[in-house]
Amino acid sequence: MISDLATEIFIPVCAVIGYISCYQWFLVSKVKVSTDRHVNNGGSAKNGFNDYLIEEEEGVNDQNVVAKCAEIQNAISEGATSFLFTEYQYVGVFMCAFAVLIFVFLGSVEGFSTESQPCTYSPLKKCKPALATALFSTVSFLLGAITSVVSGFLGMKIATDANARTTLEARKGVGKAFIIAFRSGAVMGFLLAANGLLVLYIAINLLKLYYGDDWEGLFEAITGYGLGGSSMALFGRVGGGIYTKAADVGADLVGKVERNIPEDDPRNPAVIADNVGDNVGDIAGMGSDLFGSYAEASCAALVVASISSFGINHEFTAMCYPLLISSMGIIVCLVTTLFATDFFEIKAVKEIEPALKKQLIISTVLMTVGIAIITWIALPSSFTIFNFGTQKVVHNWQLFLCVCVGLWAGLIIGFVTEYYTSNAYSPVQDVADSCRTGAATNVIFGLALGYKSVIIPIFAIAVSIFVSFSFAAMYGVAVAALGMLSTIATGLAIDAYGPISDNAGGIAEMAGMSHRIRERTDALDAAGNTTAAIGKGFAIGSAALVSLALFGAFVSRAAISTVDVLTPKVFIGLIVGAMLPYWFSAMTMKSVGSAALKMVEEVRRQFNTIPGLMEGTAKPDYATCVKISTDASIKEMIPPGALVMLTPLIVGIFFGVETLSGVLAGSLVSGVQIAISASNTGGAWDNAKKYIEAGASEHARSLGPKGSEPHKAAVIGDTIGDPLKDTSGPSLNILIKLMAVESLVFAPFFATHGGLLFKLF
Amino acid sequence: MISDLATEIFIPVCAVIGYISCYQWFLVSKVKVSTDRHVNNGGSAKNGFNDYLIEEEEGVNDQNVVAKCAEIQNAISEGATSFLFTEYQYVGVFMCAFAVLIFVFLGSVEGFSTESQPCTYSPLKKCKPALATALFSTVSFLLGAITSVVSGFLGMKIATDANARTTLEARKGVGKAFIIAFRSGAVMGFLLAANGLLVLYIAINLLKLYYGDDWEGLFEAITGYGLGGSSMALFGRVGGGIYTKAADVGADLVGKVERNIPEDDPRNPAVIADNVGDNVGDIAGMGSDLFGSYAEASCAALVVASISSFGINHEFTAMCYPLLISSMGIIVCLVTTLFATDFFEIKAVKEIEPALKKQLIISTVLMTVGIAIITWIALPSSFTIFNFGTQKVVHNWQLFLCVCVGLWAGLIIGFVTEYYTSNAYSPVQDVADSCRTGAATNVIFGLALGYKSVIIPIFAIAVSIFVSFSFAAMYGVAVAALGMLSTIATGLAIDAYGPISDNAGGIAEMAGMSHRIRERTDALDAAGNTTAAIGKGFAIGSAALVSLALFGAFVSRAAISTVDVLTPKVFIGLIVGAMLPYWFSAMTMKSVGSAALKMVEEVRRQFNTIPGLMEGTAKPDYATCVKISTDASIKEMIPPGALVMLTPLIVGIFFGVETLSGVLAGSLVSGVQIAISASNTGGAWDNAKKYIEAGASEHARSLGPKGSEPHKAAVIGDTIGDPLKDTSGPSLNILIKLMAVESLVFAPFFATHGGLLFKLF
Repeated sequence: MISDLATEIFIPVCAVIGYISCYQWFLVSKVKVSTDRHVNNGGSAKNGFNDYLIEEEEGVNDQNVVAKCAEIQNAISEGATSFLFTEYQYVGVFMCAFAVLIFVFLGSVEGFSTESQPCTYSPLKKCKPALATALFSTVSFLLGAITSVVSGFLGMKIATDANARTTLEARKGVGKAFIIAFRSGAVMGFLLAANGLLVLYIAINLLKLYYGDDWEGLFEAITGYGLGGSSMALFGRVGGGIYTKAADVGADLVGKVERNIPEDDPRNPAVIADNVGDNVGDIAGMGSDLFGSYAEASCAALVVASISSFGINHEFTAMCYPLLISSMGIIVCLVTTLFATDFFEIKAVKEIEPALKKQLIISTVLMTVGIAIITWIALPSSFTIFNFGTQKVVHNWQLFLCVCVGLWAGLIIGFVTEYYTSNAYSPVQDVADSCRTGAATNVIFGLALGYKSVIIPIFAIAVSIFVSFSFAAMYGVAVAALGMLSTIATGLAIDAYGPISDNAGGIAEMAGMSHRIRERTDALDAAGNTTAAIGKGFAIGSAALVSLALFGAFVSRAAISTVDVLTPKVFIGLIVGAMLPYWFSAMTMKSVGSAALKMVEEVRRQFNTIPGLMEGTAKPDYATCVKISTDASIKEMIPPGALVMLTPLIVGIFFGVETLSGVLAGSLVSGVQIAISASNTGGAWDNAKKYIEAGASEHARSLGPKGSEPHKAAVIGDTIGDPLKDTSGPSLNILIKLMAVESLVFAPFFATHGGLLFKLF
Repeated sequence: MISDLATEIFIPVCAVIGYISCYQWFLVSKVKVSTDRHVNNGGSAKNGFNDYLIEEEEGVNDQNVVAKCAEIQNAISEGATSFLFTEYQYVGVFMCAFAVLIFVFLGSVEGFSTESQPCTYSPLKKCKPALATALFSTVSFLLGAITSVVSGFLGMKIATDANARTTLEARKGVGKAFIIAFRSGAVMGFLLAANGLLVLYIAINLLKLYYGDDWEGLFEAITGYGLGGSSMALFGRVGGGIYTKAADVGADLVGKVERNIPEDDPRNPAVIADNVGDNVGDIAGMGSDLFGSYAEASCAALVVASISSFGINHEFTAMCYPLLISSMGIIVCLVTTLFATDFFEIKAVKEIEPALKKQLIISTVLMTVGIAIITWIALPSSFTIFNFGTQKVVHNWQLFLCVCVGLWAGLIIGFVTEYYTSNAYSPVQDVADSCRTGAATNVIFGLALGYKSVIIPIFAIAVSIFVSFSFAAMYGVAVAALGMLSTIATGLAIDAYGPISDNAGGIAEMAGMSHRIRERTDALDAAGNTTAAIGKGFAIGSAALVSLALFGAFVSRAAISTVDVLTPKVFIGLIVGAMLPYWFSAMTMKSVGSAALKMVEEVRRQFNTIPGLMEGTAKPDYATCVKISTDASIKEMIPPGALVMLTPLIVGIFFGVETLSGVLAGSLVSGVQIAISASNTGGAWDNAKKYIEAGASEHARSLGPKGSEPHKAAVIGDTIGDPLKDTSGPSLNILIKLMAVESLVFAPFFATHGGLLFKLF
């Protein structure tokens, strides 16, 4: 076993390695995007990036293209930055208010007493007062929120900078463009993983200065970190999701359907808003979401560990096992990334998907070895884990299996998602084929596909839960979630790659680049749709495990010994909880629909009132469309946000912890299904459309070309899928996690003051 | 309190009153439908039915119209009968096989011993051997199946006979047509309620001859009745649902979308299949479904009562409380029906929906009084109820509240469903408005509407569960379900009225009757869509309560004391159970899609190869389309049927009763949501389309007329909604109930021999 000192060194070193991995950004930034039309690009003849004038398609007028791309990129970047700042202002106010709430509620548990109290789990020892835990929970909450903001914002910055560069590299071939898009995604992944790890590590070490040996209180306070991260993620996902899809749906409905102009045509007034949306929704939102999962999984594992033998005996290295796994993950992902960018080269379109798939496999295999090493050097061969009131003996090989089962379940979910959303396989091809008989059959087949795609992932999740739960109770589930998230940097790389390619295509279209460039970015994007779906699959799978672990931690904190379905309090919680994802989805989908209608009106107005717009002689008013999306998403994210944030508080205060347990279990088991089916249905529709457009096979050509009746039907499916896959579906992950972590943070308060209604009657 | 003898008389008398209520059929059948073109209709000048030659629209060529209607009706009736016979043959084989399985599995519990055994709940007494229970469970199972077949078949017969009569009466005005359609529905309702009650009553009395004082065994054997009823209902719903929607979607896609001919145009080869489908799916399927709910709710209440003080002390009247409620329901519904047909008269289209709503309110108010009477005369002022191992003291007023809360929750669910699916209110009008921007926004708004419509019904169900569960444990929940189902005759009347009107419209179109007749039947049908949705709401709400009661009875029988979510066995059951409705829906929707594609091909083939078909000079080949629907539905109902029937067996045998409990709870809380949202989404789309077509308001006219772009978008929504509202949605009720009742029947077997996998490892 390694010493505590080695642990103290290993974790920050790995985080630093994560930061160093961002050197790849240096490679990306070598592609020059500048509005200066006279500058020559690059200096040395050997850097491999300045010779593209020879190979490229658009030999003529090259500096103009670069300048145009730079202009567009600036517009997108400005729009995205201004939206995020507006969003952060509103959410910031809310966060401060909620921070006060946390402090007051948790402080009131022992009546704001400043005296030490007997510990909850070791009543013979003295623990720090509840007031301190209230204070530090609040601080952790704000810290989590800030880290989430930084992660999302940096991701967005990287992505917007990468968009135009990918477009420019696409002139040199698919392979070069792929590397730029993928590297940028990887940079975002490493930044996020390193940030999450380092901030948490520092926070623990700082809190230790105050808490000393009271690890029970320390790790209880740390759970605020997960709540902060996830609360920000909620607003990021919902606000960003509404933004991006309002713009996308609005742009498509008028542009593609009514005016018959291509996607991302610069004449479309909503086109900039659409591209901004991809960056704030798919990138910043996804970044916050996965950071939230990571923070919550770590907190859930730590809080359970603190009341297990690690915590009781103060074994620091074993206690840090969750952080060590994440540290190892950074190293594994770094090696994995090199396989995509340095060891091999992508030469043809058809190699993209296999290359991304290989990333998943390589990272999983390497990580399995990594976990084995960490487990053997960091854990004693047997120890006890807190299991709802009793201590359960666990062996280190069992914990190794817990982490592995999560990791491999993630891989299975990834592959199943790929099978159901990639147009290389029969499910999406069947959906495309059903477009022959119109949009109605397309929608029926698409919905059926989404429902069907739930089966195997749920079995994979069920098996991981069974194994990890049986071996090591809630600690096992938490580390299984961490196992699934350990390759987060790779996951984010292949996930962020999708919207970056999508935007690269948009920029190519807007900059008026040749058809071949657009074809290349489209090919990147088709693979990107699949990988985005895989990323969502990971996010959902890990959310299920994380929220179960948090749920378990909540139950432990709230001192409930069983959650018996056959009691009225629990059962009504279960059925109402299972309803919440529907309520939430209804809100978010309606929001996208309404915002899209407003966008449609504005785009139509511009086409009708700006002379010369259709002819391309006048410029549209992009800013108004950006404003519509911004206003709509800020306004519309409040009701679903309130639903998620208030439900645990209302249920806990008025109905008590038993009903709240039911609500958490119900929303978890129901939300997972809708989230998976919604994101796969949407991904499948999108790729069915791309399948027809690409016309790569005899079958696909028989359905096309663009503008044919089957293609029109496919466009309708794609539009319906937009809010499903990018707004309501992925937001549901956060719903299930956030309610669980919020319940955990407020557990002492609910246990003391909750259940008012039942106390009254 | 009334004596046992009075009870023995009251129940069959009420059943007989139910049969007598079918005298209304006599009134319906006075409308003559004959293929003989020379017969004069009706004899006496005073019967009120032969004077329509004067008032009607189609004065010319009248006998030809009647003869044509008769011909069409014959074709529909023949198609429906032949389908049901084919279906019953296949299902019959399955039922016999399953009956053997029940006998063998239950017989094996005590190793086929013929000796009496100590009772499960009163170990000091001797009970009949498990072999006897196995035998009589099997017999009850077959009895339930046969009663279900009879109910479905008679309902179908009544409906097909009523279709043409409604068309003919529509010539005299909306009011007359309404009465015919409603009366026919009522006849079906009374038949079904009376059948269900009488068969159960006779079965109990016959079994008493053998079981004597062993009521525990008696009512355990009776649960087979519920299983038989529900198994038949499953195949009826799924097979019928696939049949009707394959034909409907297929007919619409070619007829309305491609060939631009009206719905139900006689030139469309699938039109007869479509009309047959309405009768076998919406009528026979619905009849079997509600009969199943009724049988299961009664069985669940009886089996819990048998191990409560009623059973232990052999209080026959109190024991029969569930049957007494149903008996009172028949009388209340009889009075209620008179309000619609005799006390008031419908004169205008806008009076239809209020009249149907009034039915719901009147029956609920009267039934509240009825329940009060039954409760006070049949129950002692306090008694004990079995509550998972303990006996709970319950007062009669508490039980009264249990039944009432179910009854009134049904009314609330009905009204909420009406609000979300009737085009008189803003939700459907918003959906219609979203058609302005095309099919995609229509679908997004429609899905959001369905999700939103889940909220209040779930709260209503949750409150009923909380109240009834808290007052009287699972017995309370079972009688709450019976309360909701007590007005089943009225519910079925307003529900069956929908498809009858729909088909009446179809017959008017096919018989070439004037536009005004079609407008009248369309108006009836629009109200019918809403009432069908209300009927589905009742079916789903009661299914939720019934399946919880069955689940409780199962847990009691399987001798589990808690179903703790926080054990791995239960939790994996919960999450997999929540997935099952998605798996099931994927199967049924895909089946409808595939069958519809086949139908489309056939219809296209006929239009392309039969000369003169479009011109109306040649007749299409209806029979081939009927055959396609028949073959597809028989073939496609097997996989979803197998999923539902095998899941409890596989889980019970290999994973044991704890995991099975989780599966039941998971599928219940998840299935209810999908079922409600699917049927409301579909109903809303259908009525949004009708709203545009009817053009009754300024807003509606701005979206129309038929054939406009918004109308086309609405037709797409309607087509997507078809399988949601008529196949996958309503079948889910049966999924959740059937798995619960099957688990209950096999509980002793699972408790003895189940959980093989966990025993091995």
